[in-house]
Amino acid sequence: MRPSRRAPDELRAVSLERGVVKYAEGSCMVKFGDTHVLVTATLEERLPPWLKGQGRGWVTAEYGMLPRATLERTRREASAGKQGGRTVEIQRLIGRSLRAAIDLEALGERQITVDCDVIQADGGTRTASITGAWVALADCVNWMKARNMLKASVLRDNVAAISCGIYNGTPVLDLDYAEDSEADTDANFVMTGEGRIIEVQGTAEKTPFSDDEFFALMALAKKGVARLVDLQKMALA
Amino acid sequence: MRPSRRAPDELRAVSLERGVVKYAEGSCMVKFGDTHVLVTATLEERLPPWLKGQGRGWVTAEYGMLPRATLERTRREASAGKQGGRTVEIQRLIGRSLRAAIDLEALGERQITVDCDVIQADGGTRTASITGAWVALADCVNWMKARNMLKASVLRDNVAAISCGIYNGTPVLDLDYAEDSEADTDANFVMTGEGRIIEVQGTAEKTPFSDDEFFALMALAKKGVARLVDLQKMALA
Amino acid sequence: MRPSRRAPDELRAVSLERGVVKYAEGSCMVKFGDTHVLVTATLEERLPPWLKGQGRGWVTAEYGMLPRATLERTRREASAGKQGGRTVEIQRLIGRSLRAAIDLEALGERQITVDCDVIQADGGTRTASITGAWVALADCVNWMKARNMLKASVLRDNVAAISCGIYNGTPVLDLDYAEDSEADTDANFVMTGEGRIIEVQGTAEKTPFSDDEFFALMALAKKGVARLVDLQKMALA
Amino acid sequence: MRPSRRAPDELRAVSLERGVVKYAEGSCMVKFGDTHVLVTATLEERLPPWLKGQGRGWVTAEYGMLPRATLERTRREASAGKQGGRTVEIQRLIGRSLRAAIDLEALGERQITVDCDVIQADGGTRTASITGAWVALADCVNWMKARNMLKASVLRDNVAAISCGIYNGTPVLDLDYAEDSEADTDANFVMTGEGRIIEVQGTAEKTPFSDDEFFALMALAKKGVARLVDLQKMALA
Amino acid sequence: MRPSRRAPDELRAVSLERGVVKYAEGSCMVKFGDTHVLVTATLEERLPPWLKGQGRGWVTAEYGMLPRATLERTRREASAGKQGGRTVEIQRLIGRSLRAAIDLEALGERQITVDCDVIQADGGTRTASITGAWVALADCVNWMKARNMLKASVLRDNVAAISCGIYNGTPVLDLDYAEDSEADTDANFVMTGEGRIIEVQGTAEKTPFSDDEFFALMALAKKGVARLVDLQKMALA
Amino acid sequence: MRPSRRAPDELRAVSLERGVVKYAEGSCMVKFGDTHVLVTATLEERLPPWLKGQGRGWVTAEYGMLPRATLERTRREASAGKQGGRTVEIQRLIGRSLRAAIDLEALGERQITVDCDVIQADGGTRTASITGAWVALADCVNWMKARNMLKASVLRDNVAAISCGIYNGTPVLDLDYAEDSEADTDANFVMTGEGRIIEVQGTAEKTPFSDDEFFALMALAKKGVARLVDLQKMALA
Repeated sequence: MRPSRRAPDELRAVSLERGVVKYAEGSCMVKFGDTHVLVTATLEERLPPWLKGQGRGWVTAEYGMLPRATLERTRREASAGKQGGRTVEIQRLIGRSLRAAIDLEALGERQITVDCDVIQADGGTRTASITGAWVALADCVNWMKARNMLKASVLRDNVAAISCGIYNGTPVLDLDYAEDSEADTDANFVMTGEGRIIEVQGTAEKTPFSDDEFFALMALAKKGVARLVDLQKMALA
Repeated sequence: MRPSRRAPDELRAVSLERGVVKYAEGSCMVKFGDTHVLVTATLEERLPPWLKGQGRGWVTAEYGMLPRATLERTRREASAGKQGGRTVEIQRLIGRSLRAAIDLEALGERQITVDCDVIQADGGTRTASITGAWVALADCVNWMKARNMLKASVLRDNVAAISCGIYNGTPVLDLDYAEDSEADTDANFVMTGEGRIIEVQGTAEKTPFSDDEFFALMALAKKGVARLVDLQKMALA
Repeated sequence: MRPSRRAPDELRAVSLERGVVKYAEGSCMVKFGDTHVLVTATLEERLPPWLKGQGRGWVTAEYGMLPRATLERTRREASAGKQGGRTVEIQRLIGRSLRAAIDLEALGERQITVDCDVIQADGGTRTASITGAWVALADCVNWMKARNMLKASVLRDNVAAISCGIYNGTPVLDLDYAEDSEADTDANFVMTGEGRIIEVQGTAEKTPFSDDEFFALMALAKKGVARLVDLQKMALA
Repeated sequence: MRPSRRAPDELRAVSLERGVVKYAEGSCMVKFGDTHVLVTATLEERLPPWLKGQGRGWVTAEYGMLPRATLERTRREASAGKQGGRTVEIQRLIGRSLRAAIDLEALGERQITVDCDVIQADGGTRTASITGAWVALADCVNWMKARNMLKASVLRDNVAAISCGIYNGTPVLDLDYAEDSEADTDANFVMTGEGRIIEVQGTAEKTPFSDDEFFALMALAKKGVARLVDLQKMALA
Repeated sequence: MRPSRRAPDELRAVSLERGVVKYAEGSCMVKFGDTHVLVTATLEERLPPWLKGQGRGWVTAEYGMLPRATLERTRREASAGKQGGRTVEIQRLIGRSLRAAIDLEALGERQITVDCDVIQADGGTRTASITGAWVALADCVNWMKARNMLKASVLRDNVAAISCGIYNGTPVLDLDYAEDSEADTDANFVMTGEGRIIEVQGTAEKTPFSDDEFFALMALAKKGVARLVDLQKMALA
Repeated sequence: MRPSRRAPDELRAVSLERGVVKYAEGSCMVKFGDTHVLVTATLEERLPPWLKGQGRGWVTAEYGMLPRATLERTRREASAGKQGGRTVEIQRLIGRSLRAAIDLEALGERQITVDCDVIQADGGTRTASITGAWVALADCVNWMKARNMLKASVLRDNVAAISCGIYNGTPVLDLDYAEDSEADTDANFVMTGEGRIIEVQGTAEKTPFSDDEFFALMALAKKGVARLVDLQKMALA
């Protein structure tokens, strides 16, 4: 029995609310149960120096956590004077995941920056961030289309992400914090609407795992991502 | 005529919503029109080193702005590696303002950290922060009372803050961004429920101002703060 | 009775000595009693990036304190790796105050940087800095005039600053450290030669103050600034 | 045909040389072809503050690259003033991988720090680092055993890592830089001597990949890791 | 002919003024011509952690330059966020030089921090700093003696420093900036009152120099230091 | 008797191995006994901003120490966030020393960066670095000559460096760590192939030294450098 009484293949209540910030070209408040992330997409007509003049654009991401998003207050990174290792790792993952589904040539020489700020954290902030980030990105692309800024189609497919893990010996989908801190194994899957894999990250927290355990997690993840992609489509409809 | 069509002494729509974050001992989403600030109050049983063993507590504040709270994206301070001058100035002001209305001896050897994170900025983020911070602080104090952690009364009075300015020659209350960027003079007032002054900051953006102009702003501020204090009381009722 | 035996409306001995550093385009050693600040004004034919090409110049300020300007040694900010919150707040105030009295268009596309370094601190370093900074700035402008670098008049009026406070229930002018650390209320006023207000900062250190108390401080400040402006005029004569 | 003319399942020439640094409790110069990493293991009788008094030890890793390990000189991180995102990500991975195979309780309240410094980089520095780090760690554990510092067995199993990727449509093992920069998909596998998985990281550089492609990479990795574990055993014999 | 018309073995006008800062236990304004350095000595009853409990004290130095001490404004190190390489090198030299002439055991478990802040720079700031620092240090030691804080004699000898160089083929003493920037060779000598050497630093700016040239510089330095030691004795008399 | 049983004027076993890193334009693994430094020289067709357009090139150096090059692990400077004072001092010395023997005009508008990374430290890392750096620099210059990038001769002379010290009252050459930590006086000499002096740094660790002692050290250094220059010539033959 999971602490949340969910079935092993059951997602938390997921919501994707668009248009939550007035100024951004795209935005989404994504909630996976008690994990809440505010995502904004910003379009800028400039590129990082190393990318200039190559006829293509860029998508990058930044991730942050409000100090009291967590059970105990976490030190504000701006006041600590640097981003921690976990933050850097997550924002690199979000950026890579989004870039895998966008046609950077079709975007033109522009940059879209996706900011994912965790308002409340109850496990799975990186997967919630990616899932919401794709919605904000799609919104931003729609904003550009409405202004005739794009000649071709830019987004190749949906992108969503989910965590899985082995909890008390059973593979389960979408770990919350209570499960995550107890799980033997933790894996994050970023996949496309077609079910292809963009990124897999599996870590044995305690005991190394077998191939079969890993395949079971991957099967769960496919189901979960398919459901998230449906929700993304509804949100953008 | 103000851009927002408000009367000179009219506040924006103000709301103070408590309990918006699951883990914090006190929290408040404060909105002054399109300015939205999420405030949390964190209680910790520890003190900064320079304050230990003196039989009294401390209240401090940190302030941040989500990158896309603004019309154009602002660089994330955690990634820039330091807090800007404006941030530092504002969080010092919030901390001083709250400390003026709390009995630090009665608080005991504990620290309350108030985090003010601007979700959306349309002028007046520091005054909205202070007004909401007092609600989160009061909530945190109530949380402590419910657990019998306090022997005496801790909060001496309400604290609220409002900006005033001279816009097109007329003193007006609660400037939004459109007014703020055009105003000749800008002043922030932090006051108590009794109408006494905790902090005054008046700045001539363009032309130095006269005593009379300043007194007119102060009179407006008194009205505005009185209204904000009413709203705080309703929020906490 | 004030610790210094001064009358409530009596300034400390103030001196403004020009030309104290060989290389600077303007300089002033300002002393308010035992508070000594060395101010230099540097003219540079370059602007911060965000100001280029707008046909106007800029005045900015930096503030520092020698480690043993204080009773106990203060850590050197260069070795700590960053400027503290108080430093940032003060240098922003000095810059704003000077810009309020200079015609940036008439200055042309140039920057004047005013450095205020506290040699010895006995209260009121920010107000002494502003008062001396205006002299160094005026010297720098005269240096430019002598080289026919300016077509029009650049300085609109004098700028001087003074602190006031309520000490043992009495409003007093120009607080030294002994008074400042005991005062109930502390206010800094930056004013022009004409007596108009550029900046007001009033803070209740202990008990919030009333309107009447604030007006009494403002009246004292007017007297003090008028005297400082006289001394500036004598220094530049 | 691979640029290096290797068969798809062929490792580069791998060597693991122990005892390469005089002072370290364990050390290993690991070479995967032209990728050379110097690994040292340092034993210290102290722990990070958050781990004290829990009756168990810690293994952590740091990663660095000499500036001219790369085709073009890379900026020295010590002079840049911070470790880049890639560095942080890799050193976290190395630390996690080693901790998965060590019994931290049996280690006692001590810390082993593994430093991986890349002397020359030709692809696969993180997998070479992990493979060499395990040898240095085992050497350090042997050093402790020889001094009767350990009561129980500490290392549960070998740990080795290898990269795989899809190059020109074919799954290949142990990518060098020429392949890595062209590969469609890149995955790193950290496994135990028994063939169980500690960490999987798969990333679609260009096109998202299918389950079958991923399984093919995993099968290759198993073969590669088995060979690396043999080499580790020979090195320690 | 030297630009300053001095004889080859002639010092600039040197003055050593004590007691220039109110709070410091020792202080000295040292002037070598247009090079002016304000030195303070601070006594603290605490030690750096690595020195605690060893029954001896420590003398350390910090060096800084006011931004407009130089012909063109130099960026403030506190605002740049770190001390430059030249600063670090100089303050390490000052500290070493002073420690060579003090009995750290006799000092007891205390630290003296000597701050050298350059008000105006015209060459030779490090040698002027050392010469003035010894006066401030001696003053601080006298302050301690007057309070019976020292049982034994602490200062073993005077310490003074001077630069020499080969200018237009002639060895000259005490280079000012005009000479320093043109000199072929530049050497700094730190010596004791007895004429023994504490530190020698010779650098060929353009052409490597011969032994004989170096010995000529050393002979000049001996003369110069002897004169500086006389001036130190007069200052402290 | 020296701890290493060497004669007073005997160097440690010195080796200079070229071509140790695949990508660098010049490289050298230099060993002075157990002190091992890996040096690379990188040629870049760009200059620091302050040197552009002056028709001459630049040679600069960076120095680092692997964390476990030392008896106890030293904190990684990249993770500490800055280079320590000792590092900065040494890399400035290496750069100055090399520039004294190269014709920067003949080099053209290019920069050569010499990286000296200490793999193992047993005293004398700075002198070993300089001696090896000259070999790597010469290799880099040869690389340029082979590509017809240089019109004129660039290297004026060899540069090598050695430490000397007074150990148990006897002047000795090439101190290892055991001697260095006990020596009364420590001096580093950087000299040319012709025996002229580029840099002299002598420091009295405990007791100030006499002229005669200094001359004895200098005579030893001449002998040592002559031997090192022979070894450089053999290495490059």
